[in-house]
Amino acid sequence: MRPLGLLSLMLLAAGCRPEAPALELTTWPPAGYEVLDLSYAYNDSTIYWPTAEGFQLRIDHRGYTEAGYYYEANTFCTAEHGGTHIDAPVHFAEGKWSVDEIPLTRLMGPAVVIDVSEKALANRDYQIQVADLEAWEATHGPIPEGAIVLLRTGYGQFWPDRTRYMGTDARGPEAVPQLHFPGLHPDAARWLLENRRPKAIGIDTPSIDYGQSTRFETHQLLFAANVPAFENVAHLDRLPPRGTLLIALPMKIQRGSGAPLRILALVPTPRT
Amino acid sequence: MRPLGLLSLMLLAAGCRPEAPALELTTWPPAGYEVLDLSYAYNDSTIYWPTAEGFQLRIDHRGYTEAGYYYEANTFCTAEHGGTHIDAPVHFAEGKWSVDEIPLTRLMGPAVVIDVSEKALANRDYQIQVADLEAWEATHGPIPEGAIVLLRTGYGQFWPDRTRYMGTDARGPEAVPQLHFPGLHPDAARWLLENRRPKAIGIDTPSIDYGQSTRFETHQLLFAANVPAFENVAHLDRLPPRGTLLIALPMKIQRGSGAPLRILALVPTPRT
Repeated sequence: MRPLGLLSLMLLAAGCRPEAPALELTTWPPAGYEVLDLSYAYNDSTIYWPTAEGFQLRIDHRGYTEAGYYYEANTFCTAEHGGTHIDAPVHFAEGKWSVDEIPLTRLMGPAVVIDVSEKALANRDYQIQVADLEAWEATHGPIPEGAIVLLRTGYGQFWPDRTRYMGTDARGPEAVPQLHFPGLHPDAARWLLENRRPKAIGIDTPSIDYGQSTRFETHQLLFAANVPAFENVAHLDRLPPRGTLLIALPMKIQRGSGAPLRILALVPTPRT
Repeated sequence: MRPLGLLSLMLLAAGCRPEAPALELTTWPPAGYEVLDLSYAYNDSTIYWPTAEGFQLRIDHRGYTEAGYYYEANTFCTAEHGGTHIDAPVHFAEGKWSVDEIPLTRLMGPAVVIDVSEKALANRDYQIQVADLEAWEATHGPIPEGAIVLLRTGYGQFWPDRTRYMGTDARGPEAVPQLHFPGLHPDAARWLLENRRPKAIGIDTPSIDYGQSTRFETHQLLFAANVPAFENVAHLDRLPPRGTLLIALPMKIQRGSGAPLRILALVPTPRT
């Protein structure tokens, strides 16, 4: 046996695989990884669906109190489905998980990034096809079972410009037919569910169904299978196609159909 | 050199320490750990400070639409500082981090749990002392630099009974003097800052200052040092004194003085 073979065997026997980064919970974030924040901040510019009011922050106090100490506090109001947020399955599927019922283990794990930005930037109404998933797999290997599948359309670069991001700056129900942004085709959603069983789907647009959808079939398909969606995910351009760990923690709203979502990615740093 | 010494050296050279659990990002949650949710859900019973309104959820739609598909959506209003939430340093320290400015790396890492429940349950106005921290260290070793320090008073068991949890069920400014629950003494906060430099402090009560505080000195001390606080943290009774990894992700409110916080703990499972 060659020395290198012996080393590998010893490492394996110790539960250590030298070909993958070994981590310890005592060192966090783990060496060799950097933390990226994939959530947009909530503010006056945060993008909501045309029928929803925007984010509203009321300043309750900001300044020194009579007792002499400094104090700030606010109250806020928001629709569940604005900004970087999660759609819980019950959003479009009766009796499925509300946001507080989704097991946390379904909201974290290895992520893959399917980049369709070239096609989607050329066509605002693009729907991601099964062929796009197959093309990704031909280059990067199979999407692992239980992965979090992130869809990069390239529209994240337009945030928070409503017109460029989703096709219209108009508000109210009459603006909904003017929405134009890419999404995941129901056939591709079905293919993922049947063949790759993802934990969750994320996208850098306001919705996993494209802007022109009227029946939200991709929502219906995914949510009937209790697969939640992350929408308005930020900075997908900074992630590699695979090798990322995603941790997405929503505000725990009892019986919520969705919630503001804080998403972080642990991304391998290039070795120097 | 003994064979075991050689193995250790080779493992170390490969970045692998056999005495600690080795993890890989491709397996998540990591083998040997379970995920615990340390956040309470937001609902009608969620506990807020006596001067704040409670959590308000407005149902915008719940049922089948005219188009034939099922649909739920809600809007909610909340004070930043109710339920399981984070206090950003700017809450009590002018110019320090607002919630969106706190680096995510300051909100995750190894956690220790200081259990003072015996003393605190015997005295609602108990303030955790330097001696309590020293006693913990005498048993468990030094609190690691940069740890997240969780303070277990035992009052979490009373959630959501306002009277038992915080001493009063009354509302409004006149109820504030009736608050009785334990907290962290300013001297102990100062000791932690000077000697152990924690990333953050968490507690299973409504506030890191005890209920009878009028100047909130522990808040002022910690926040001047940009150390945020987690309040109303759930289920601290389920964590070991050390060996836990904590990940706490707040809603990203621009210029927020605090925010709803989703906290998870990765806890080693007993080996069978």
